[in-house]
Amino acid sequence: MADQYAQTGEDSRPTEIPAIRWEEPPEGPVLVLLDQTRLPAEEVELVCTDASALVEAIRSLAVRGAPLLGIAGAYGVALAAVRGFDVDEAANALAGARPTAVNLAVGVRRAQDAHRTEFAKGGDARQAAEAALAAARTLHREDAEASGRMAERGLALLDELLPGGGHRILTHCNTGALVSGGEGTAFAVALAAHRVGRLRRLWVDETRPLLQGARLTAYEAARSGMAYTLLTDNAAGSLFAAGEVDAVLIGADRIAADGSVANKVGSYPLAVLARYHHVPFIVVAPVTTVDLDTPDGASIEVEQRPGHEVTELTAPQVPVAGAEAGGGVPVAPLGTQAYNPAFDVTPPELVTAIVTEEGVVSPVTAEALAALCEKSRQATID
Amino acid sequence: MADQYAQTGEDSRPTEIPAIRWEEPPEGPVLVLLDQTRLPAEEVELVCTDASALVEAIRSLAVRGAPLLGIAGAYGVALAAVRGFDVDEAANALAGARPTAVNLAVGVRRAQDAHRTEFAKGGDARQAAEAALAAARTLHREDAEASGRMAERGLALLDELLPGGGHRILTHCNTGALVSGGEGTAFAVALAAHRVGRLRRLWVDETRPLLQGARLTAYEAARSGMAYTLLTDNAAGSLFAAGEVDAVLIGADRIAADGSVANKVGSYPLAVLARYHHVPFIVVAPVTTVDLDTPDGASIEVEQRPGHEVTELTAPQVPVAGAEAGGGVPVAPLGTQAYNPAFDVTPPELVTAIVTEEGVVSPVTAEALAALCEKSRQATID
Repeated sequence: MADQYAQTGEDSRPTEIPAIRWEEPPEGPVLVLLDQTRLPAEEVELVCTDASALVEAIRSLAVRGAPLLGIAGAYGVALAAVRGFDVDEAANALAGARPTAVNLAVGVRRAQDAHRTEFAKGGDARQAAEAALAAARTLHREDAEASGRMAERGLALLDELLPGGGHRILTHCNTGALVSGGEGTAFAVALAAHRVGRLRRLWVDETRPLLQGARLTAYEAARSGMAYTLLTDNAAGSLFAAGEVDAVLIGADRIAADGSVANKVGSYPLAVLARYHHVPFIVVAPVTTVDLDTPDGASIEVEQRPGHEVTELTAPQVPVAGAEAGGGVPVAPLGTQAYNPAFDVTPPELVTAIVTEEGVVSPVTAEALAALCEKSRQATID
Repeated sequence: MADQYAQTGEDSRPTEIPAIRWEEPPEGPVLVLLDQTRLPAEEVELVCTDASALVEAIRSLAVRGAPLLGIAGAYGVALAAVRGFDVDEAANALAGARPTAVNLAVGVRRAQDAHRTEFAKGGDARQAAEAALAAARTLHREDAEASGRMAERGLALLDELLPGGGHRILTHCNTGALVSGGEGTAFAVALAAHRVGRLRRLWVDETRPLLQGARLTAYEAARSGMAYTLLTDNAAGSLFAAGEVDAVLIGADRIAADGSVANKVGSYPLAVLARYHHVPFIVVAPVTTVDLDTPDGASIEVEQRPGHEVTELTAPQVPVAGAEAGGGVPVAPLGTQAYNPAFDVTPPELVTAIVTEEGVVSPVTAEALAALCEKSRQATID
């Protein structure tokens, strides 16, 4: 449970701290996270020495984003195994830390399965732990590769849908290198467009209540030298009405078998606006985000988060004068009840395309998704 | 230019401070405003002794809301007249303090016309000033009466559209007693439903960037004992999808001759969501909000506000540790550009009805609006 905060100097320029890394100092292996709750004000590393510290980091959103949660979950299992803790107990705690992103449970299970398989093959605890760590490293590397392939396929799709070039892309929440072993999902597509000179502007939704757009996507956009503009989530309607949005690109936390997409709250209103304005609405996510065991949107469990995220303002720096229980400054009357779902669900008929590393699904149907998953499974077996 | 802040005790219970009042202490007449930028944390009065102090209060949103801006503008002209300043200069500054709400210019003109007319009739400066003040008081009283009539008509419309009762109303921004000489516009309708036991819940959009929903509407809802729940603007989509919204009620800052409605940014996305979910979208505003000189939505000038309202978080209390130029804590990287329109425009085809004190327009057409304005003009002449 021993978290340590290591401040990275006073230099205000962004540095190249990876979102997650495994380290093996003399005191024993640790999982090092870039604490995303402190960005963009400070680049602070959070060092986890056991799975419960990681569970807390996941719950507090110090580490977040569907693909990265999968990687973190797998490393968390490896950490428990390497340090001699109960692996199944750690795996259960990690898989249940947040309910909506399927990647978390998938990543946890992958390391846990590797650990069990090694034992079943007659390996000892050390060998089983090494197998779990190897599984986590493989997932990490695969995610980085998947990122690159999603970016390629996404850019090709954009160029096909918008032959004029000069793409003006609206995005929501944060889907770049901070959520991924590579350069991310939706953001990676925008970045690919930027690198070939075909991104005219990235419109960045601030993404209330936790402002991942303002804090994280703007940070990544600024680092990469993109032309970007921040807006309140509710100002997107004005951009659509003015014809300033050529496409919407978002990530996903879980895609049900019917193609319903759970993603950060505020995605569904964008899908409705996009449909009303005949603008493509594109979801970019690795195949692991598709959960064939979840039949439809209604079956997706949507995490409800504490009301104080809405009733109090929290800035990335602490402390703030007059801070309350939730750590922020109250902006609503005391006792105000808040509705605070972390995600919403967009039905498949509003999704123009789902871009994965294995291929693009468009139109979005249960059959096409099932075929994609089967292809991905075959590729893994081969 | 001498503003004075008068703190109203340490009691945290809401008090009955009116949004605006004219006072005549021995030092000379003043216009006293409830400083809405400090709510709900503090109930602080702002005392204006001249029109430029009022212009500043209007720009900083210490006084805001379309109907109240009209009343404030009229009193501002009276203040200039009574204190012997140049009335036309004051009127110009006041009318131009914010561009979108038509009521501001209408209120200013009404007091200015009364002032001019009195001079034209041979009155002296004192009599002309009294005429301006009388015009402001009349507008103030009329607005209070209009509020009551809008509430009655709006409630009747709700009961007609939703015969089942138990209304679950979604509202945006702030439209209650804080924007009005009476109980407001859209909020007054919800309040009327609450008083007769037919309001099941008021869903309150927080209304970024300045959080008028969280700070002001939640404050008014709490004071009136309504069942209310606060949400981030982008969570409204989830409520619609879950069938939890029976009607949307909003105010308006300007209604063009074709029925296009300019209102707080975020209104238009709600109109699109309401249409997609077959939910009535109802605009409640006094007839003075209809501007027949503005032919359509494209002709409405939408105020663009400073980017720091988006890139920095500002809590109602000051100071906040680490505050920047805009007075808030930066949440986006330094240098981030923001798109920050204060309003958006909803086309008439998305508006189910416009409720005014003179009658309900539904469907919303240029002809029906023109007829309503004519009826209102006749009633004023009679």
